[in-house]
Amino acid sequence: MDQLKEEINQQLLKLLSSVKEGKVKEAMTYSLLAPGKRLRPLLFIYVLKAYQMDYHAYLDIACAIEMIHTYSLIHDDLPGMDNDDLRRGRPTCHKQFDEATAILAGDALLNLSVNTILNMSIDNDLKVAIMTRLYEASGVNGMIYGQQQDLAFENQNASLQQLQDIHHHKTGELIAVSMQLAALIAKKDDYQYWTQIGFDLGLAFQIQDDILDVVGEEEKLGKKVGSDLDNHKSTYVTLLGIEESQKKVEELFQNCYENVYSMRINHGLILQILTVILKRVN
Amino acid sequence: MDQLKEEINQQLLKLLSSVKEGKVKEAMTYSLLAPGKRLRPLLFIYVLKAYQMDYHAYLDIACAIEMIHTYSLIHDDLPGMDNDDLRRGRPTCHKQFDEATAILAGDALLNLSVNTILNMSIDNDLKVAIMTRLYEASGVNGMIYGQQQDLAFENQNASLQQLQDIHHHKTGELIAVSMQLAALIAKKDDYQYWTQIGFDLGLAFQIQDDILDVVGEEEKLGKKVGSDLDNHKSTYVTLLGIEESQKKVEELFQNCYENVYSMRINHGLILQILTVILKRVN
Repeated sequence: MDQLKEEINQQLLKLLSSVKEGKVKEAMTYSLLAPGKRLRPLLFIYVLKAYQMDYHAYLDIACAIEMIHTYSLIHDDLPGMDNDDLRRGRPTCHKQFDEATAILAGDALLNLSVNTILNMSIDNDLKVAIMTRLYEASGVNGMIYGQQQDLAFENQNASLQQLQDIHHHKTGELIAVSMQLAALIAKKDDYQYWTQIGFDLGLAFQIQDDILDVVGEEEKLGKKVGSDLDNHKSTYVTLLGIEESQKKVEELFQNCYENVYSMRINHGLILQILTVILKRVN
Repeated sequence: MDQLKEEINQQLLKLLSSVKEGKVKEAMTYSLLAPGKRLRPLLFIYVLKAYQMDYHAYLDIACAIEMIHTYSLIHDDLPGMDNDDLRRGRPTCHKQFDEATAILAGDALLNLSVNTILNMSIDNDLKVAIMTRLYEASGVNGMIYGQQQDLAFENQNASLQQLQDIHHHKTGELIAVSMQLAALIAKKDDYQYWTQIGFDLGLAFQIQDDILDVVGEEEKLGKKVGSDLDNHKSTYVTLLGIEESQKKVEELFQNCYENVYSMRINHGLILQILTVILKRVN
């Protein structure tokens, strides 16, 4: 998995090499190559591999997904949004550079994700099919809607149902699409399974975050802990407590495993990456 | 021309109707439908018409271009960027709503421009060709590069050559691509003429802005005048004076006219829209 992450990082660097020198390029490189889990690109590649597909021709799609994820983090951290100083253990983009550069770097990464897919050596019909699903997931009815709802409930109590809706859009959409696109490329009729796995995984991931915000170590997380409490934010932990939240995470992973076994794929590969996610400490 | 603007506005509204209700949609609608010149979509449509093409099948491309332009204005106006309070005679997006909503509305418009073209009923090869050129122009080697350079020279003297480079990217790229795309759709070999016209027009437009910033009436402009002087910003007017700047604008329009007459098109239509731009008071 580490070698695959390195391969993704090398390809991200290669894609950045076409960008004109300047502060925005520096900021894009700083945030995109920050030490990270590369969860979404890895899921995309693992699903391709589970279908016995050679992923190399599609590496740029993995990179485009990571660009979209990184742009959303940069903008999320801005003073006008969550106003965070730390991300992945390092100063956030606007702290390391400045606010204007961070705004432009985010815009530039979203735009570069589009250029990246357009420039690929794959069939134009496939490009259009991939982009149609990807930019539905990242757009104003997907990830951006989740961010809007997240902000709306910043200082307001949210119900479990509302939290689930926020996470579904804010985190689930991009994780789900990473797996859906691999099935689309492999021309497999497993779309609904990956959709379900993606959204369950996204929710589990988010509840883990809520738990780590309370019990995690700042050093390992690379960001401030206890910030949800400081912000009077409703989370699974504030609504259910830690024990029930942990149960919910295990239940969601159980659903994922069941869906994985409903498909004719290399199950071992997918279980491998799910286990890494389940056991994460940051 | 007014009827065409109305048609563009109606189509923009229609494209927004698929967006989930919420503050971000309100902000997108507020900024996208603000009274504006619709210069880029009009140029796109006029060039199509000058080729005797029916523009109706391509109206969504005109709308996508306007979405990109509007997103760049929303982000440009943010406190972390130019910190402007007025735009098109009304409070800027972050003043009318809030900063977080303005950031997300800008992101959402860039993303929606992608969805809009992908959803069109035209050939996938044409979609890919159009998007490839469009998102090169709007991206980090095009418009965003211009914004970065503009910020870099905020409190620093720029030479005429440097100003020209800024305007070329910041304003010229999106104006040029509006006309290039029409030639691409019409399958005409006039690409280099429209490129030249686009960049000359972009520069003329920007110098007009500099002049209006000094001699314009705040009410007509719909934004604060004298802000370049307040910001100690180098402009054509500070470097050349008003008279020489006006001469430069006329010279650039002269170039445009000559390039227009080098092509086998309906010249009258293009002259009509160029004249409107040349005589603008806001």
